[in-house]
Amino acid sequence: MFKKVLIANRGEIAMRVHRACRELGIQTVAVHSTADSKAMHVRLADESVCIGPPQAKDSYLNIAAIVSAAEITGADAIHPGYGFLSENARFAEIVKAHDITFIGPSADHIRTMGDKIAAKKAVGDLGIPLVPGSDGALANVDEAMEAAKAIGYPALIKAAAGGGGRGMKLVETEDQLEQQLQAASQEALAAFGDGSVYIERYLKQPRHIEIQIAADSHGNVVHLGERDCSLQRRNQKVLEEAPSPVLSAEEREKIGETTRRAIEGLGYLGVGTVEYLYENGEFFFIEMNTRLQVEHPVTEQITGIDLVREQISIAAGNRLSFKQEDVRFQGHAIECRINAEDPRTFVPSPGRIKEFHAPGGLGVRFDSAVYDGYDIPPFYDSMIGKLIVFGDDRELVLRRLGRALDETVLSGIKTTVPLFKDLLGDNEFQRGDYHIHWLGEWLEKQEGGE
Amino acid sequence: MFKKVLIANRGEIAMRVHRACRELGIQTVAVHSTADSKAMHVRLADESVCIGPPQAKDSYLNIAAIVSAAEITGADAIHPGYGFLSENARFAEIVKAHDITFIGPSADHIRTMGDKIAAKKAVGDLGIPLVPGSDGALANVDEAMEAAKAIGYPALIKAAAGGGGRGMKLVETEDQLEQQLQAASQEALAAFGDGSVYIERYLKQPRHIEIQIAADSHGNVVHLGERDCSLQRRNQKVLEEAPSPVLSAEEREKIGETTRRAIEGLGYLGVGTVEYLYENGEFFFIEMNTRLQVEHPVTEQITGIDLVREQISIAAGNRLSFKQEDVRFQGHAIECRINAEDPRTFVPSPGRIKEFHAPGGLGVRFDSAVYDGYDIPPFYDSMIGKLIVFGDDRELVLRRLGRALDETVLSGIKTTVPLFKDLLGDNEFQRGDYHIHWLGEWLEKQEGGE
Repeated sequence: MFKKVLIANRGEIAMRVHRACRELGIQTVAVHSTADSKAMHVRLADESVCIGPPQAKDSYLNIAAIVSAAEITGADAIHPGYGFLSENARFAEIVKAHDITFIGPSADHIRTMGDKIAAKKAVGDLGIPLVPGSDGALANVDEAMEAAKAIGYPALIKAAAGGGGRGMKLVETEDQLEQQLQAASQEALAAFGDGSVYIERYLKQPRHIEIQIAADSHGNVVHLGERDCSLQRRNQKVLEEAPSPVLSAEEREKIGETTRRAIEGLGYLGVGTVEYLYENGEFFFIEMNTRLQVEHPVTEQITGIDLVREQISIAAGNRLSFKQEDVRFQGHAIECRINAEDPRTFVPSPGRIKEFHAPGGLGVRFDSAVYDGYDIPPFYDSMIGKLIVFGDDRELVLRRLGRALDETVLSGIKTTVPLFKDLLGDNEFQRGDYHIHWLGEWLEKQEGGE
Repeated sequence: MFKKVLIANRGEIAMRVHRACRELGIQTVAVHSTADSKAMHVRLADESVCIGPPQAKDSYLNIAAIVSAAEITGADAIHPGYGFLSENARFAEIVKAHDITFIGPSADHIRTMGDKIAAKKAVGDLGIPLVPGSDGALANVDEAMEAAKAIGYPALIKAAAGGGGRGMKLVETEDQLEQQLQAASQEALAAFGDGSVYIERYLKQPRHIEIQIAADSHGNVVHLGERDCSLQRRNQKVLEEAPSPVLSAEEREKIGETTRRAIEGLGYLGVGTVEYLYENGEFFFIEMNTRLQVEHPVTEQITGIDLVREQISIAAGNRLSFKQEDVRFQGHAIECRINAEDPRTFVPSPGRIKEFHAPGGLGVRFDSAVYDGYDIPPFYDSMIGKLIVFGDDRELVLRRLGRALDETVLSGIKTTVPLFKDLLGDNEFQRGDYHIHWLGEWLEKQEGGE
């Protein structure tokens, strides 16, 4: 096992990794920007190194500074968390070149999955179901026209290099195609420096369902069931749950095993997530995330498996502590992303937390790095905590979530806590009857109705 | 199910009951003394009633005020928590006479188990193993002499009416008997208004192991395994764990089933705990607690059963939500009682909490009613929170406990947090190699060594 792990991240995920290391008897090194010198992960780590000024490009994305920090402190591994450098193949290569273990998959796998077209080809060849679409980037309007005809309208144009909804355009009828193709390509070029786009079938009201996988270096590959992340605003996940309110045990087993076998075929090492759209009983590949995900705790709560512990352990060359047949899904878990944002406008709300009280008791887990009097810096992601609630079934978990939200105190800044309280009162949400566009529509209705 | 429950208690257990009610869709009424008007349970309950001045006898023990509060607010049930009126048979009777449900067993069962000699007779007749001892209260020195001879020295004199170590005296040889008998009787008279004492075999280094039971009004009686509460200081529990580090599955099953059958024979209704001393593979009855216990969470964490939810549900006439064969013991859980006390002298340390931060993350539960800036009143028990840590096995849980304690911030007052940090460093504690006198001896060693 590693002796010392450098955590190349901040916020709640730095705390999450720190906790897993502590519980494995591993020393931790925190890195931080000058804006984060009083952050909780810095206070609790065994050592800490300041790696630069507040802007992420100068600190948390500064590969040289981070690798130097690892060398100076004698860390034998680096955990990248999520975001920042976690899916940067070059970072993984440089870390390896310095004889430090990158806690994640190979640079090749990161690179392949980071390219949407290469990713589709790689997983499609291994049996993962794809959205019917153009075979790679579109050379021109005629090619697009032909592809769209085969797929049928409405169709969706997407950036080859990107994500997060940028470079994505809906085409409802053939006469919109040319204009939307241009718009998408320009947006893609501006956002990712690459104007390549492709086209695929547009699903009307799909759910976002993703499969968690874990693979060790001894050939053991397991899937840990699904997470339903359909509650999104502008392609950003807001609330996640496991199991999905709509998936049957047979569907879970089938897509889980399909995914597991593909990952096995890939020769993948580490934890990862294969994301799908799900509509009318069919799954369609979106992308693969080659890292730990924000919403991993809901899987932990229904399987009893500590994903970060396993992730670190398999990176050190150990076997997974369990086999596929040991995995049991028990109960239900929901995670709410608590963001320092105005709950109506979603404008970030950095600043000093005046009062903070985390909810507690049975079936409540709060993963956060904030504390009373903490100054939320304006430079980073606005997520300041994850409220994870679990119990025997979804109905109980919704009630428990309600009481946990009522107990939560976070003053001095605006947060998304009121949004979740409102959502809990909605009948469709209560029934689990939602899809990836549902929250956007719901928010518009709230806006109009009030 | 009940519509509105009055919670006749304060502190963390009032919060615990409030949470269970909320999750069952039941309205809550908090009662409080004038010293507790800003308490968390008062803030979060749907309604609250001030029932008197700070001293418990004038408020939390004031039966008339509590029953009036229930009548005024239209509560259809009263939950007594633990301590205060929870084992007061008269309170249970008066509540019932007002057509309000007492969430607990019958007054008769409370009364029987509150009398140590009657309790021993009741459970002994039903097959619960007793400590060899005098058959009831001792009339005089001669009777004591005879009983002690049969039992063997060392023997222990105990108050018939009491608990908590008062009226308890060790007799190592026959010539100490008369003097110790007198001392015990006088202490018992002073503490409980009843000088009756009895004598029994003294166990040298027993463990305290207790069995949790639950019984509904439809004849279902289950046991939920054991809790090991051997870590005590002056007969006060300090840390509890489940399962016991020393019990085999066969021993668990045997004492669990013996206990279950006895409770079934008793016709008992509600949750309860049968406490035993355990030495050399033998169990000896101590007493039965006819209420929820402080340490119930460790059982909840290893069984996945919400004891307070079940307790409320069976009081409303429902069946237990599970049967004996559904009960699975999985993983390990440890609870630390965090007291506002000097960790060396154990002198209470009431006052204002300057900074408070509860530990979080996977496998950590914090049950408490304190918050940042809260004033701990000097009138009540010094326990301010329970840190419950759980995971796959005891070794992991000890590491997790260490990291959770490191994350805990409680300043402005003295707490027992440092005591638990020190304990974690002890080899015997790490091995689970302790008994009910172990902590007292360990504390003396610490005192001497520093």
